[in-house]
Amino acid sequence: MTEDNNVEVPRLGIEPEAFRLAAANMVDYVIKYYCDVDKRQTFSDVKPGFMRALLPESPPDRPESWQEVFSDIERIVMDGMTHWQSPGFFSYYPSSASYPSMLADMLCSGVPCIGFSWASSPSCTELETVMMDWLGKAIGLPECFIHGGHGPGGGVIQGTASEATLVALIAARSKTIRRELSRDPNQRTHDIVGRMVAYTSQCSHSSVERAGLLSLVEVRRLPVKDDGALEGGVLKEAVLEDRKAGRIPMFVCVTIGTTSCCTFDDLEGIGKTCETEDIWCHVDAAYAGAALVCPEFRFICKGIERATSFNFNPHKWLMVQFDCSAMWVRDSTDLINSAEVNPLYLRHNTESATIDYRHWQIPLGRRFRSLKLWFVLRMVGVEGLRSHIRRGVREAKHLEELVRCDERFEVLFPVILGLVCIKLKRPGSSLEDENDLNERLYDKIHEDRRIFIVPATLNGVYFIRICTGSTHCSIEQVNKCWQVITEMAGEL
Amino acid sequence: MTEDNNVEVPRLGIEPEAFRLAAANMVDYVIKYYCDVDKRQTFSDVKPGFMRALLPESPPDRPESWQEVFSDIERIVMDGMTHWQSPGFFSYYPSSASYPSMLADMLCSGVPCIGFSWASSPSCTELETVMMDWLGKAIGLPECFIHGGHGPGGGVIQGTASEATLVALIAARSKTIRRELSRDPNQRTHDIVGRMVAYTSQCSHSSVERAGLLSLVEVRRLPVKDDGALEGGVLKEAVLEDRKAGRIPMFVCVTIGTTSCCTFDDLEGIGKTCETEDIWCHVDAAYAGAALVCPEFRFICKGIERATSFNFNPHKWLMVQFDCSAMWVRDSTDLINSAEVNPLYLRHNTESATIDYRHWQIPLGRRFRSLKLWFVLRMVGVEGLRSHIRRGVREAKHLEELVRCDERFEVLFPVILGLVCIKLKRPGSSLEDENDLNERLYDKIHEDRRIFIVPATLNGVYFIRICTGSTHCSIEQVNKCWQVITEMAGEL
Repeated sequence: MTEDNNVEVPRLGIEPEAFRLAAANMVDYVIKYYCDVDKRQTFSDVKPGFMRALLPESPPDRPESWQEVFSDIERIVMDGMTHWQSPGFFSYYPSSASYPSMLADMLCSGVPCIGFSWASSPSCTELETVMMDWLGKAIGLPECFIHGGHGPGGGVIQGTASEATLVALIAARSKTIRRELSRDPNQRTHDIVGRMVAYTSQCSHSSVERAGLLSLVEVRRLPVKDDGALEGGVLKEAVLEDRKAGRIPMFVCVTIGTTSCCTFDDLEGIGKTCETEDIWCHVDAAYAGAALVCPEFRFICKGIERATSFNFNPHKWLMVQFDCSAMWVRDSTDLINSAEVNPLYLRHNTESATIDYRHWQIPLGRRFRSLKLWFVLRMVGVEGLRSHIRRGVREAKHLEELVRCDERFEVLFPVILGLVCIKLKRPGSSLEDENDLNERLYDKIHEDRRIFIVPATLNGVYFIRICTGSTHCSIEQVNKCWQVITEMAGEL
Repeated sequence: MTEDNNVEVPRLGIEPEAFRLAAANMVDYVIKYYCDVDKRQTFSDVKPGFMRALLPESPPDRPESWQEVFSDIERIVMDGMTHWQSPGFFSYYPSSASYPSMLADMLCSGVPCIGFSWASSPSCTELETVMMDWLGKAIGLPECFIHGGHGPGGGVIQGTASEATLVALIAARSKTIRRELSRDPNQRTHDIVGRMVAYTSQCSHSSVERAGLLSLVEVRRLPVKDDGALEGGVLKEAVLEDRKAGRIPMFVCVTIGTTSCCTFDDLEGIGKTCETEDIWCHVDAAYAGAALVCPEFRFICKGIERATSFNFNPHKWLMVQFDCSAMWVRDSTDLINSAEVNPLYLRHNTESATIDYRHWQIPLGRRFRSLKLWFVLRMVGVEGLRSHIRRGVREAKHLEELVRCDERFEVLFPVILGLVCIKLKRPGSSLEDENDLNERLYDKIHEDRRIFIVPATLNGVYFIRICTGSTHCSIEQVNKCWQVITEMAGEL
């Protein structure tokens, strides 16, 4: 209870000169990490609970030296990392890394502000507004999504695509409640919500289903054919059926680049239905949206001008470090109206003319993430980003060729961007046996540890997905990856 | 459509040596920022829309140099910042900065991983688990909240306290639905939710009300007396009244350190009611929780062993950079059950023995934020953190003394931690006139720009809140702050 053992610490924890030296160590460490990342095992062998044994039970009372902490990074942390930047990483979708993005993160962390309102840090809000316009133009979005346009549309940086989906669904819920109450003010809100129905395809990301659970809106996962794409006609039919049953269709999540198989829903057809049926059309292009910087890939988003909101993750494939999920809406008042509360301590006298991004998102506080977009867009340039995307696509096309030349294997979906989905064929045998074969192949590849991939399923078919385009991927690495797969297949 | 103007960029955007030099520039810039931050105006004079005029309309096609980008930080961004680290910042609650935390952020950004599951980066999950135990022990949490204890409890890092409240409320909603359905399986989920009621005090943060709007659970804001604290008896009465009306009381958000006046709800009394009435008791100690590192302040959380979940923000007052909001729950299965979805591409074969933190939070992806706790707890030490907290409290006590010596002013609430709430008295005049006087005082201080503070209200009384304890606050700065306030008061 006394202050006897008081340890006086510098204002910022350590002295500035100590920070300068430590930061130089850290920069060297990071550079070396990328130079040697190919020597690290992509997926770790550590067992659950490994780290507790390496750490003391409680924090120290008195300060430890930088050297003690610094040396523990390698000793304690690095062996248990999944190395997303490793050339052996073909799993999930990539997570970007670039030096310009790291420099921006250093500034964001170094000069911290919490930009929940315009007043809490004007630059944080204003740079985000302009950067979302820059990025929107770079991917060819229609003007209705641009802040600097003439409408109420604009962009915001969310943490993740899952949050963007939830924000859109909650805004749609809120808009639908208002509309229904204006038709009949005697309805109870919970009855209205209980009749709502949202749609997405069975291939959409699990976070769409989760957004439904969180917001209490039922999500119907509509079937797709073996091409993995949701058709406008299938949606239309479901909507009419639900309307007939007295339900309220109010939201669709269209996926452009599904997680399991990188297929593209029929945005044009779905968008038309949404327009005629007054349904919120949210586009989740978390991975594939980055490819829109290249004009030759914009066909995947045909119909985008019909969308109500659009989202993609620059942190996946556009050289921006996590987290930076870019979301645009056609009408920002839809977001603001969905859950605005505005106490005195958060108000400021410039409110009417400004954006308070806290109304556009789930959390209150927010980091200065637009710095990452600013640095990357300027230091790489739009043409630089295009060649980054094209490199990833070339790698995938190369892998596709390799697979097609091996008659034991089959490529399951058109390879448009960086994902290649394959399986071993066993002609004449049952689907179950073929699945079993491919599961065994996957297990062997996973245990081998030279590459890290994940499997997926569609309509009962089990397959292996291989995603190119990560930081250190290359044609040579794709060859090595294929070498591992064929070697393991040969052992079966 | 051609690749003619292809710009080949290095894998990481720029070359490693260019990054090393640029990073050294940035480190120097950050250090200089803190050395000179007292020369910057805390709250900016920029007008809404100022930045658009300073930036091109579109991103560049070809890469720009680091020097161009670097020099634009000062030219374009810094004038429009609200300087949360300035010695003139007495607004909101502080946002922490420390060099150890920045070093951890550099590692988090430099070696990125997306730790949504144990397999997606084991170290990311495991360090978080142990660090939440370290931090829990440092603030004296009961063992039921510790991962390494014997129960199903443990901690998780959320982005913000607002997310923690929402996560807790949704978990409580889910638990209540299950309980009600087990009593009568014929009920409709939306009817159950429509009968639910959550409670908090009128002084709690606006994000509690917002969590209610987002989760469709009605939040009753219960009245407090002029001491700003919610009493157990008031809650008990409300609960019984609601039960009698057929409603389902199911959640309370107890505030330990309210935003407007840093008052403390009666956790002990409320907790007892929650136990007998089977209600989820969430404790929001966003700001004040940091003070629990000092044993002499733990009395503010008397009754904590009755809480179902507890949250505070190390990024507010514990030398950890935003974002790092620490949340503990007594039973983690409550979180996991609230919205679990688990597709094949996110599954891994070590699931049963591990924590997948994506089930504990709203977003899917997550950064390696526990590095910040690790670095700060080690390089500052628990005693160092204690002296940081005690310094902030001394500054507030000093300000309280200054105010009490000036008979024109009144101190409104007991000064326990770093917040001092004051108003000018005008004996004999109406509340309206007194409020008007204080609003004019606030406006003058705000326009003067030497310090940045925000006002608040309680039960119709308008007052000015001054929060000490930020990075560069000191007794001398408090004297300067008081000088500004008395000068402006003299001019009225």
